[in-house]
Amino acid sequence: MEKFEVNILGCGSATPTPCRNPSCQVLNIRDHLYMVDCGEGAQAMMRKMGLKFSRLRHIFITHMHGDHCLGLPGLLSTMALHEVGGHVSVYLPRDGVEIMEANTRFFCDNSGIDIEMVPIDGPGRIFENSHLTVEAIPLYHRMPTFGYIFREKPGARHLRGDMAKYLQIPVSAIPSIKQGADWTAPDGTVYANHRLTTDPDPARSYAYCSDTLYNPAVAKAVGRVSLLYHEATYASDMEKTARERGHSTAAQAATTAKAAGADRLLIGHYSKRYRNPEILRAEAAAIFPNVTAAAEGLTIKL
Amino acid sequence: MEKFEVNILGCGSATPTPCRNPSCQVLNIRDHLYMVDCGEGAQAMMRKMGLKFSRLRHIFITHMHGDHCLGLPGLLSTMALHEVGGHVSVYLPRDGVEIMEANTRFFCDNSGIDIEMVPIDGPGRIFENSHLTVEAIPLYHRMPTFGYIFREKPGARHLRGDMAKYLQIPVSAIPSIKQGADWTAPDGTVYANHRLTTDPDPARSYAYCSDTLYNPAVAKAVGRVSLLYHEATYASDMEKTARERGHSTAAQAATTAKAAGADRLLIGHYSKRYRNPEILRAEAAAIFPNVTAAAEGLTIKL
Repeated sequence: MEKFEVNILGCGSATPTPCRNPSCQVLNIRDHLYMVDCGEGAQAMMRKMGLKFSRLRHIFITHMHGDHCLGLPGLLSTMALHEVGGHVSVYLPRDGVEIMEANTRFFCDNSGIDIEMVPIDGPGRIFENSHLTVEAIPLYHRMPTFGYIFREKPGARHLRGDMAKYLQIPVSAIPSIKQGADWTAPDGTVYANHRLTTDPDPARSYAYCSDTLYNPAVAKAVGRVSLLYHEATYASDMEKTARERGHSTAAQAATTAKAAGADRLLIGHYSKRYRNPEILRAEAAAIFPNVTAAAEGLTIKL
Repeated sequence: MEKFEVNILGCGSATPTPCRNPSCQVLNIRDHLYMVDCGEGAQAMMRKMGLKFSRLRHIFITHMHGDHCLGLPGLLSTMALHEVGGHVSVYLPRDGVEIMEANTRFFCDNSGIDIEMVPIDGPGRIFENSHLTVEAIPLYHRMPTFGYIFREKPGARHLRGDMAKYLQIPVSAIPSIKQGADWTAPDGTVYANHRLTTDPDPARSYAYCSDTLYNPAVAKAVGRVSLLYHEATYASDMEKTARERGHSTAAQAATTAKAAGADRLLIGHYSKRYRNPEILRAEAAAIFPNVTAAAEGLTIKL
């Protein structure tokens, strides 16, 4: 199966703690890197985790609070200094474009890299290539905020080698068979596709929801993803604080995962009051058992 | 003796490595904190080293390369978020004021902190309080760059307790005696100050020179400081590269320390090619023996 990995570079909230960085993940999908949020320290964590700057071409920012985007000027200036070259697109809410363009103008040598800020004005598909789509969905925070869903496109069906050999299927016929076509042999016999192929690998998907109030609309927008990374800034005893600050509790994160029909839940964006996120994980697990607590340096393979 | 400590929060150069942060020091002088340069990760290192945000009121930036100032927006936004309160002054070359003001306007809640950017246009005294002065000196880099010299003001003389008691010197006379005055006893006898007091603690000083080409003018500007922290980006076999990039070798740092008449030299701002700075320290020590290699987390007490 092609690579689809989620690397956690930071899963703390606004205040860094001695062992936690602000928000940042890097997806490795078929050896292309996609960064989601870029808190301070993201470039240092990329080095620590052996993630290559030259493979990073797309960066997605959820909102313009400093703990989600202030690693960007430093990361881009280092990429420019190293003359990584080529084009880097940063997708971000429109209200962040002006300040980030000002920073890149000041701090990045544009001969070393071609940076484009792509404003997001509302939900919808914002990126697509041959094997992947990225969709922005609305979140409910104290400023314009988007979650992102990364979805593999359905892959080709797998040709059964034994049948291909037995029937002497010509190479020229294979692409259409992999796309689901039947095959007509030289003697006129029609072989149904399901006899020639097996199902494609399941298309995997990853959704990231940070920061957000609990809102049933989030689960509807997320749907049946392979992995949902949802913020869980507080435990339920702090629900009032969570609501006031535009955040979710661990129980709310689990409720959203369950309602969405996600296969697996990852929680993070812990308040600094939780040195150990076990209390948050346990609270979520009571509602949605397949839950993992994010940690700096963690890699999850889908 | 009053506290005068130099804490190293980062001593790497432009590219962060897994074990090195970009430039940042925090001086603790009588429990007031003074930050010099603010590379990315400075706020996280303050937490790791137990340095309190609420004691930091003065930040000095040498120049506007990202590895010397891109920790500033995040640090200030965290200080604002924590409602540290009061006034924070950032001293920086004039070319950096506009972008840093734009960042603080965008990322800092001004109700939580009152931030002032103080432009530096040329060398001279830029800060003074009851016990300290800070002077900017010109450095020779690829953009406007200043070194900073922190100097304790000469302290009061120490009153000899035995003499004060024996002669029954009244409390009201003590301040002027500590300032060097003689004392006339009720019977008319004049006691020379040197019989009543001992010398004040030596006034200590710290100079920071990063980034700079080797230039004999630097040693003249620095003079006889207690501790000189001088960049040593490369070893001598890379002298040509150092010159092209506006940097110094370890030997050049030592030559400057020797010519200045410094008591002690600290080197840092190592290129990422030096995983272990021992080669740089040894090169400097051949010219100026009292040299220490900076490291993240190091504290030097003067």
